[in-house]
Amino acid sequence: MTVKGQLAALDWGTSSLRAALLDANGAVLDERSLGRGILSVAPGEFPTVFEAACGDWLRAGTPHAIVSGMAGSRQGWMEAPYCACPAGFAEIAAQLAWIERGRIGIVPGLSCEAGGAPDVMRGEETQILGALDLLDSDDALFVLPGTHSKWARVTQGRIESFSTFMTGEFYALLRKHSILARTLPETDGELDEQAFRRGVEQSLRGTGLLHNAFGVRTLSLFDRLAADALPSYLSGLVIGEELRAQELPAESVPVVVIGAPALTRRYEIALQALGASVQSLGSEATWRGLWRIAEVAPW
Amino acid sequence: MTVKGQLAALDWGTSSLRAALLDANGAVLDERSLGRGILSVAPGEFPTVFEAACGDWLRAGTPHAIVSGMAGSRQGWMEAPYCACPAGFAEIAAQLAWIERGRIGIVPGLSCEAGGAPDVMRGEETQILGALDLLDSDDALFVLPGTHSKWARVTQGRIESFSTFMTGEFYALLRKHSILARTLPETDGELDEQAFRRGVEQSLRGTGLLHNAFGVRTLSLFDRLAADALPSYLSGLVIGEELRAQELPAESVPVVVIGAPALTRRYEIALQALGASVQSLGSEATWRGLWRIAEVAPW
Repeated sequence: MTVKGQLAALDWGTSSLRAALLDANGAVLDERSLGRGILSVAPGEFPTVFEAACGDWLRAGTPHAIVSGMAGSRQGWMEAPYCACPAGFAEIAAQLAWIERGRIGIVPGLSCEAGGAPDVMRGEETQILGALDLLDSDDALFVLPGTHSKWARVTQGRIESFSTFMTGEFYALLRKHSILARTLPETDGELDEQAFRRGVEQSLRGTGLLHNAFGVRTLSLFDRLAADALPSYLSGLVIGEELRAQELPAESVPVVVIGAPALTRRYEIALQALGASVQSLGSEATWRGLWRIAEVAPW
Repeated sequence: MTVKGQLAALDWGTSSLRAALLDANGAVLDERSLGRGILSVAPGEFPTVFEAACGDWLRAGTPHAIVSGMAGSRQGWMEAPYCACPAGFAEIAAQLAWIERGRIGIVPGLSCEAGGAPDVMRGEETQILGALDLLDSDDALFVLPGTHSKWARVTQGRIESFSTFMTGEFYALLRKHSILARTLPETDGELDEQAFRRGVEQSLRGTGLLHNAFGVRTLSLFDRLAADALPSYLSGLVIGEELRAQELPAESVPVVVIGAPALTRRYEIALQALGASVQSLGSEATWRGLWRIAEVAPW
């Protein structure tokens, strides 16, 4: 059946919880953000936090709530077993895990087998399918940059396969805990686009990050790159290393980057240097994805 | 001139200081190790630590002392400017930095230009040339595994070029500071050769460490690799990633691995899987290198 009336949509991740009240057409009526990611929620405390996030909407007559993200992991509210790829709206909606049948459902993450090891996502599947709907497209390559970037291939409206890249985490490790921490200035400052591009190009040469990261130190040692430019150069190196591992599609298939503008901008610069046609989308994709999953879910 | 009689040879690195008294033929008469790497030595305190390491040998008539390693860096005892590649015994010996002319010399590190950034080494040049002498060889590819692994090509007795790979440091970063720290057991335990080989092979497939490191988590999540095997698998991933970046020479040219047996063993396993002919050497290469540099130095 389809959702009647409003929907409480929750994006409940590791470090934050966002909630939106959507109308019958998926438009956002109200939006909230709580600093209550699952890492800050004790077992047993999930119903209380859920109540704080959207209890008033449900009491006022909103019939359904749907939750995506790490709340469906083993460390979350209730484990929603991974749905195997390929998967689209129908497969995901059919596998909602029910906190309360017909009332509160959790979106399952996706799993796939990719060259030697399984891969998983939780939350990104909702953003990807939402973006697909917003773009009115059936085929695209998606990138969701972040601590753990996800690259996903969508064909005929379904996520065929995807891969995780620990790009943001590698940047933070090198930035804060490696020998480079002594070379880099204390704060990152504004993006230096030229230094960033230089880092991307250096990675695309192919010697690998294990070697190129050391170059941050030597370029500084030999005064070949100003201290202020080093964080942007290092960012270019890790993002370039991520791009080096991708098979980019023909120009007719768009590469869609979903994320916050400060980060998607970097991927736009890097991808355009590779001749890809890039589109960027923000968090609106999440609400659209949750609304469309709810629309086909067996409430 | 050649060294008359004995030589005090010092390998003074970041975290330790080793000293050997060598006879006129380069044989080790006495050997010491002090926990006084340059990180633990305050500026101005170097002469005192030097005296503690080998002052008695010099007072007893040993005419010369020679020092390699980070003691010659900007943060060390006295900066010994980098010697440019290609460099062999003659070039290095001609550029000793003198703490006391004719009596105490510091071996310069090497620099080279390698694809977009400079590269540097300090101490490894002495080990490489010493190993070359021990092996009575003129051409070889050298690997010195460690926190920052060095790969060096030697042709006609001179180091032509080299590259640094932050392999050991990446392992430690992922081991201790990344999300994988939660998945891995508290201690590394014995090397699990099968898991190590599997990690090497996974890296050689070419998707890159940013992706493969995430596989440590998912292989564990899906019970596809036992917790005890994960550190060996991760070690295989990072060393495999280092190997993936190398152009290995024809089988007639040996790959020489210099280092402690626990580490060289891993490189032997990985390199043999690639069909390379491998030889391993330990710290004897350092003393031979220092002795041969001293032999041609202009005391």
